[in-house]
Amino acid sequence: MRAAVTRVGGIGVEEIEEPIPGPGQVLVRTLACGICGSDLHAAADLRRFAGLVEAVGGPGGLDPERGVVFGHEFCAEVLDHGPGTERTLPAGARVCSVPLVLGPDGPEGIGYSNRYPGGLAERMVLQEALLVPVPGALTAEVAALTEPLAVGEHAVNLARLAGQEVCVVVGCGPIGLAIVAALKARGHGPVIAADFSATRRRLAELLGADDVVDPAASSPYGRWDELGVPTRQADRAAMEMLGAPVRDAVVFEAVGVPGVLQAIIRDAPPRTRVVVVGVCMEADRIEPFFAAARELEIRFSFGYRREEFAATLERLGRREFPAEALVTAVVPLDGVAEAFAALGGAEQGKVLVRPR
Amino acid sequence: MRAAVTRVGGIGVEEIEEPIPGPGQVLVRTLACGICGSDLHAAADLRRFAGLVEAVGGPGGLDPERGVVFGHEFCAEVLDHGPGTERTLPAGARVCSVPLVLGPDGPEGIGYSNRYPGGLAERMVLQEALLVPVPGALTAEVAALTEPLAVGEHAVNLARLAGQEVCVVVGCGPIGLAIVAALKARGHGPVIAADFSATRRRLAELLGADDVVDPAASSPYGRWDELGVPTRQADRAAMEMLGAPVRDAVVFEAVGVPGVLQAIIRDAPPRTRVVVVGVCMEADRIEPFFAAARELEIRFSFGYRREEFAATLERLGRREFPAEALVTAVVPLDGVAEAFAALGGAEQGKVLVRPR
Repeated sequence: MRAAVTRVGGIGVEEIEEPIPGPGQVLVRTLACGICGSDLHAAADLRRFAGLVEAVGGPGGLDPERGVVFGHEFCAEVLDHGPGTERTLPAGARVCSVPLVLGPDGPEGIGYSNRYPGGLAERMVLQEALLVPVPGALTAEVAALTEPLAVGEHAVNLARLAGQEVCVVVGCGPIGLAIVAALKARGHGPVIAADFSATRRRLAELLGADDVVDPAASSPYGRWDELGVPTRQADRAAMEMLGAPVRDAVVFEAVGVPGVLQAIIRDAPPRTRVVVVGVCMEADRIEPFFAAARELEIRFSFGYRREEFAATLERLGRREFPAEALVTAVVPLDGVAEAFAALGGAEQGKVLVRPR
Repeated sequence: MRAAVTRVGGIGVEEIEEPIPGPGQVLVRTLACGICGSDLHAAADLRRFAGLVEAVGGPGGLDPERGVVFGHEFCAEVLDHGPGTERTLPAGARVCSVPLVLGPDGPEGIGYSNRYPGGLAERMVLQEALLVPVPGALTAEVAALTEPLAVGEHAVNLARLAGQEVCVVVGCGPIGLAIVAALKARGHGPVIAADFSATRRRLAELLGADDVVDPAASSPYGRWDELGVPTRQADRAAMEMLGAPVRDAVVFEAVGVPGVLQAIIRDAPPRTRVVVVGVCMEADRIEPFFAAARELEIRFSFGYRREEFAATLERLGRREFPAEALVTAVVPLDGVAEAFAALGGAEQGKVLVRPR
């Protein structure tokens, strides 16, 4: 079958072996698959990426010296069932899945494994137990957004919002936009979304952001006082003593490049909860004194729980927000290498691949 | 009166003006006062320290070009009452206080203000409303430990312990020891305490640490498996799915020098809560990927609430643990400069100053 294969040298379309479903697995045809920021990181330095995954005890099966087919944000159609399956979903059913599969050596990540190609291939094998059926009214393109949107869902759950917080989302790539959507779906706000890109700010507005800010023109943190968030520890203490309503700030970091966390720490009001969702693969520099004196809480969010994935697909089925707007380009397998190169520039929302 | 005055050039005993209690303030005689790690930081670079306090919106009144008398961990005796006081505590009463005073320009930190000398002076002025009487049975030396012990109390409160966590305390200076004491007072554990100093490890044992570790000889993180803390995300997920008991790890960072936070991040099991209590004044380097992949929570703790201060003094009054063991040296004002120099070496617990 055809697949976009990433090697240490670069990405190209190759003819690779057909995947064969093992016990408890199904064979599927990829309908649509998103390109994720983590794919860009991994493609930029496959060896370093594989080393980091191993260092943190992530799922195995990724040897950077062998080719890997990315793609863990997919919607697919069931083609065939492997041995020992329950055939709960028939051939022709459209499905999404948490991108994990149980291989002979343990769990492997679909799209980050040499053995299990991801959605940038015509076909994949998935684990039957993890399949979630796609509601009939949804297009495959929108269903493929389940995975990145679940990341936003999880980040918002980790923020433990009580409902009175002022939320700032730093970075409006697909993950930042997923956070905006998850916040607004729960009625939280005000939500202030910041991005250098006008396209992305427009998308944030479309998904319900109450205010959008271009950090090149003004600070996303200019409205604390007006919104009732005390910016000095002493003011906060005085307000609490007087029984005045005090609002907390919650900042979502959805950029994942060095320097952003410190920029947030430097300007955060006392007791801000920072939820870090952007995955920074390089070493970073912080000034802990600023975090200490304001008693910041920094919560790192990664992926999602299986229930959050299913809940996100259900929410998409209810068409609560214009998710399709997130998709700003759809390319064939032949366009993958170019799409990876262009995504560095970042005037895009989500780029989807349709393998045929 | 005599005081140990810190200037940009160094520390020395000087004859300074008598403090005069303003409205709502009382004049006290210092009985005992601890030297804090923050004092060491401030003395090492007074200008930088003052700049940082200003940058984070801390209490005002610290001009590094003028002399400052440190000392915010004190027990004192009431001498006289200023105008507009309620005289709730008579002359002769022994008191502790949160080290804050309301000056003509707003709140100032006792011990970090040019106007309000701290406990490394014969006399101070304190805010009457903040005084807490010292229970009769306590020595002034033990009562002076209220402040650093309250820092431990607060850090443990911020950790939101449910009671099943494995707690590791990294660094057994006075703050680390305060954390050990606060954990054991609440019945938490196992508590594993780590320090390079044999003296400090002995103190941690005395305060109830269940295990002490010399990081030069073995890792404080060697026992996760044995204690039921899963060290791989995949193992944790599997244990949760099987309904097996899963214990969380909580690591208290009580060192406050660059590199320690990353060392914790690098080795922490998934979902570890890290409570940072050591105040690192320099920039620090972290590798966010390790924190992200394990979904760490990093909570910065600073100081304490007024109620926690009062509760700590009450607890000391009930003699729940051998607090006096924390004090490893008592020096006069003339010994302050030497004590500051020696504390860099760190074979000490708490060093107290008796101004006369």
